[in-house]
Amino acid sequence: MAEYSDLKILNRIESPKDLKALSPTELGALAEEIRRYLVTTVSRTGGHLASNLGVVEMTIALHRVFDFETDRLVFDVGHQSYVHKLLTGRAKDFSTLRSRGGVSGFPKTNESKYDAFNTGHSSTSISAAIGMMRADKLNGVKRSVVALIGDGALTGGMAYEALDDVGQQKLPLIVVLNDNEMSISGNVGGMSRHLAKMRSARGYRSFKKGFSRALKHIPLIGNWLSDRFEHLKNRIKYFILPNVLFEELGFTYLGPIDGHDIDALTAVFNYARSMDKPVVIHALTHKGKGYAPAEKNPEKFHGIGKFDEQTGETSASFGNSAIFADELCSIARENKKVVAITAAMASGTGLDAFKKEFPERFFDVGIAEQHAVTMAAGMAIAGTVPVFCVYSSFLQRGFDQLLHDVCLQDLKVVFGIDRAGLVGADGETHHGIYDISYLNTLPNMKVLSPSSVQELRACLDWAVNENDSPCAIRYNRGRLPEREMTGSVSSWECIKPFRSVCVAATGRLVSTAIAACEDLNVGLYNARSLRPMDEAALEKISHAHYVITVEDGVVNDGFGTQVAAYLAGIGAGTKVICAGVPNRIIEQGSVAEQDEECGLSVQALRQTILQYMGGIYD
Amino acid sequence: MAEYSDLKILNRIESPKDLKALSPTELGALAEEIRRYLVTTVSRTGGHLASNLGVVEMTIALHRVFDFETDRLVFDVGHQSYVHKLLTGRAKDFSTLRSRGGVSGFPKTNESKYDAFNTGHSSTSISAAIGMMRADKLNGVKRSVVALIGDGALTGGMAYEALDDVGQQKLPLIVVLNDNEMSISGNVGGMSRHLAKMRSARGYRSFKKGFSRALKHIPLIGNWLSDRFEHLKNRIKYFILPNVLFEELGFTYLGPIDGHDIDALTAVFNYARSMDKPVVIHALTHKGKGYAPAEKNPEKFHGIGKFDEQTGETSASFGNSAIFADELCSIARENKKVVAITAAMASGTGLDAFKKEFPERFFDVGIAEQHAVTMAAGMAIAGTVPVFCVYSSFLQRGFDQLLHDVCLQDLKVVFGIDRAGLVGADGETHHGIYDISYLNTLPNMKVLSPSSVQELRACLDWAVNENDSPCAIRYNRGRLPEREMTGSVSSWECIKPFRSVCVAATGRLVSTAIAACEDLNVGLYNARSLRPMDEAALEKISHAHYVITVEDGVVNDGFGTQVAAYLAGIGAGTKVICAGVPNRIIEQGSVAEQDEECGLSVQALRQTILQYMGGIYD
Repeated sequence: MAEYSDLKILNRIESPKDLKALSPTELGALAEEIRRYLVTTVSRTGGHLASNLGVVEMTIALHRVFDFETDRLVFDVGHQSYVHKLLTGRAKDFSTLRSRGGVSGFPKTNESKYDAFNTGHSSTSISAAIGMMRADKLNGVKRSVVALIGDGALTGGMAYEALDDVGQQKLPLIVVLNDNEMSISGNVGGMSRHLAKMRSARGYRSFKKGFSRALKHIPLIGNWLSDRFEHLKNRIKYFILPNVLFEELGFTYLGPIDGHDIDALTAVFNYARSMDKPVVIHALTHKGKGYAPAEKNPEKFHGIGKFDEQTGETSASFGNSAIFADELCSIARENKKVVAITAAMASGTGLDAFKKEFPERFFDVGIAEQHAVTMAAGMAIAGTVPVFCVYSSFLQRGFDQLLHDVCLQDLKVVFGIDRAGLVGADGETHHGIYDISYLNTLPNMKVLSPSSVQELRACLDWAVNENDSPCAIRYNRGRLPEREMTGSVSSWECIKPFRSVCVAATGRLVSTAIAACEDLNVGLYNARSLRPMDEAALEKISHAHYVITVEDGVVNDGFGTQVAAYLAGIGAGTKVICAGVPNRIIEQGSVAEQDEECGLSVQALRQTILQYMGGIYD
Repeated sequence: MAEYSDLKILNRIESPKDLKALSPTELGALAEEIRRYLVTTVSRTGGHLASNLGVVEMTIALHRVFDFETDRLVFDVGHQSYVHKLLTGRAKDFSTLRSRGGVSGFPKTNESKYDAFNTGHSSTSISAAIGMMRADKLNGVKRSVVALIGDGALTGGMAYEALDDVGQQKLPLIVVLNDNEMSISGNVGGMSRHLAKMRSARGYRSFKKGFSRALKHIPLIGNWLSDRFEHLKNRIKYFILPNVLFEELGFTYLGPIDGHDIDALTAVFNYARSMDKPVVIHALTHKGKGYAPAEKNPEKFHGIGKFDEQTGETSASFGNSAIFADELCSIARENKKVVAITAAMASGTGLDAFKKEFPERFFDVGIAEQHAVTMAAGMAIAGTVPVFCVYSSFLQRGFDQLLHDVCLQDLKVVFGIDRAGLVGADGETHHGIYDISYLNTLPNMKVLSPSSVQELRACLDWAVNENDSPCAIRYNRGRLPEREMTGSVSSWECIKPFRSVCVAATGRLVSTAIAACEDLNVGLYNARSLRPMDEAALEKISHAHYVITVEDGVVNDGFGTQVAAYLAGIGAGTKVICAGVPNRIIEQGSVAEQDEECGLSVQALRQTILQYMGGIYD
């Protein structure tokens, strides 16, 4: 347990400048304090723990060498920015991490002058950094730009597009590759530290040839890798360990280096800074370092909810992801054509259960949503039924492939769109509130939005076994309620019969609407099929004076817009009031708080309904 | 000039099986016939000429070795599929290339059993192929799968996501890399042919080591490249020339090979087929080979309109792309912060004019729209005003980056969205009909849709010099008319005053609407700002009985939908009729034919308007 008041060194650090006065011993003690504070805080708030425990020394060293008031530090994904936040004046407020109005779990330019670029999705850092450097060059500004990227983010194709572009320009970008693959970092030893120190010395160039030969004989690098790591997932990453790829791309490669050795890191960063050319620093780190439960189970502690600080235990939950995966396994037992795909989210999407039962029919492609979608199209054309489980906000990466490869060819690919709607503490980059809109524009695409566990299972069953087109099933983070299902997936359920005021809600907000309408003399429909909509139900509600639509997505271009356009298209004269997420930034907080902010709480929705009930006659 | 009836050999080829009976001499003569027929046909239809002239021998050899009735040939982009079409029963109808109901300019599974996968956009082939192979494996089907990909398509990050995934699986994918970079292919000589033959012999393995050493001394490959080609754009491509990258990724590398030597290609394809493991065949080709004007100017003859077969001359045109670029240059002379970005479309978007005048402020990132968008965000945050000119259908690749990097941070990036709306002969993969929808869902994004040359220029000027947010300006292929502009960009122009029937049109279809409404007693508005819409104008038309919206985009989720939802939201009772592109596949043809099919011709639109004028009172 570490409270802010216990932190003897950290609470003296008001800005990174204060770091420079610390002795080596104090720096070690600071790292220790930061680790304890991270564990205590995240055990209470939830968040990304393991990756931050891995970058403590790296972040300290970066702030010792660079001045990120003028220099720029661009995080990739950004979930590894906690240590940076602690060192840049946000330690005191850190207990508010990921809560409404509190410190964000990602870099935010409006939170601190030390945050250079907002992130949340993977593989953007090099692109953003090169853009900044090109602008600086045109503007005649001199400063260092550092992109801090993890090994996982290098599986995203966008990172290669950017790397391909940097080398050509010889812009002095400093890429810090945080390689926290456990099987690699386990081998870190004296040789890599030695290498790093040698290479970061001014005499580097003359030693380079000799090192190239030496590298071949070091177990960490060279041919040994291709032989030994073939079973591992992302071979391109291991290819990067030898310096060949980066050097060919025009970077000077420095590493591998022990990512927990502040002195070595400081030396190599200083050297990189002095070079004035593209440099990649390859640092090996332990994910979860310093907290035994996270070291033991770094995947669990990557992104985690609240947990017991002593034991690392979390309360078990069986949410929509797990239910979807459970149903998928059940379907796959009968239907041998079913295969499952994930883009590095086997655990988050619940698909690890499918992987366990059907390892031959499970495909994890890495952080590569574009590839995942088109690969699914290829699988569909060749006679399987692919089910791609993916977070709504990450499927945005595959938008063109959804259209070009799946929908234009009308291929039966099923999308399990997880984390649809407001997501809570991860904030605006992770909300799944755009999918209704971007799916609506695609030809042949069907969109289902179940409101209960029973409907979620039925939607998947229908999509796989009865439907013949691309089909997306969207479900929220958390767990839908149990509610007996009546009627078919493609029809809307009439929960309360037609009245002059009708409410049409979808997904998790059907429960909200049921509560909001309790005892009110209004009609209530469960719009579980968003595309196509149920025209019989629409015809019915076209006779209402007021229709209030309720959805967990952007309000200006989603379900309500479609209902309104439909009713205007038949000249119904019905006034349509759309309740949903306003098209502006909805910051982190609990989902309940975000619902409140958007007028989607039970009480707010009831108020809206009552307002319109007052305006009519029956 | 070569008419179908002149083709002595090709008109005997009814299926690829007929190829196998031909002697080497006849094969050479066939290649010659194909070239002449390609030139004659494309001179009349327009299309992709240079790339097809480059793959004549390669395609013949592929069809001699594989049986693509059962084996699968997946094209990347697909514009290089003409020769394949000529050899698979489509020679006779080839004069209908790219015309309505005729042979498509891209592979189409519904056109031939020999077309394995539909394409049009770049970098999808490896993903699709690996999906097919995984499905085949599960289904116990044995067949060869070949992905034919150009060097340009390898700049798209998606290709790396896929390559990263193939090697791991050891699926026996055969990647044929068609490298038509002129500066490289100029060096093709005996050594590469020799190499190819040696390597494709069964004794390859034992010779491999020796070759690895030998490679270092060949001008085409090895260190020489990194020294000599640093000035060239996509260094990653040159890195691929030595076999290192592919071999590290788990591929066996065969090449470089002369891509115009049918015998050598046949040998290497046969060998690759026998290997049963991932193979890449690196073939060097001349873009435009055999037609002097195309050899001399391969970029011009990449995608080209009709031209004079004797001289290669085309009629000059100065369309919207050129006007946009001209205005951008003019603005950039005053506003030094303006920079321009393209993703490998300097010529297509007209930006070569900007490049010429402002080489320091011009950035071509390759086929890498994701990187382009995020790099633009980085440039905006660092104090420049980036203008990214991009085809509407290709910007789909950057959808997540539009949201995540540009719009959530509310950065001033200007998007020149070229080829918006129906595009004609390129067909369904290239229509820019989804942008109104996918831009509407993004926070902070403004969307302008000029209807005249004057408005196009004014929109760009306003976006760069007056606006402070992300702003997209969409304009069609071709040229908008000249029409004097009144009022401001952000307001709607009232062309004919309010009546009980009002028409609201946008973009190039404003001209259509003006013609359709001639002498009719209807209101007519030019909706040049799609987001935000002009609420004063909307208030006015909310008093109409009928509003007819007219747009060059999908009708179920675009401008008309927004108007309808707005009017339903205020309970206007106005019936809104949306004219636009139906949400289904609109195949190739002229834009006029596509307009006709969509009810967007002057006559069809006039009919629609008259129909509603008959139903009202005044």
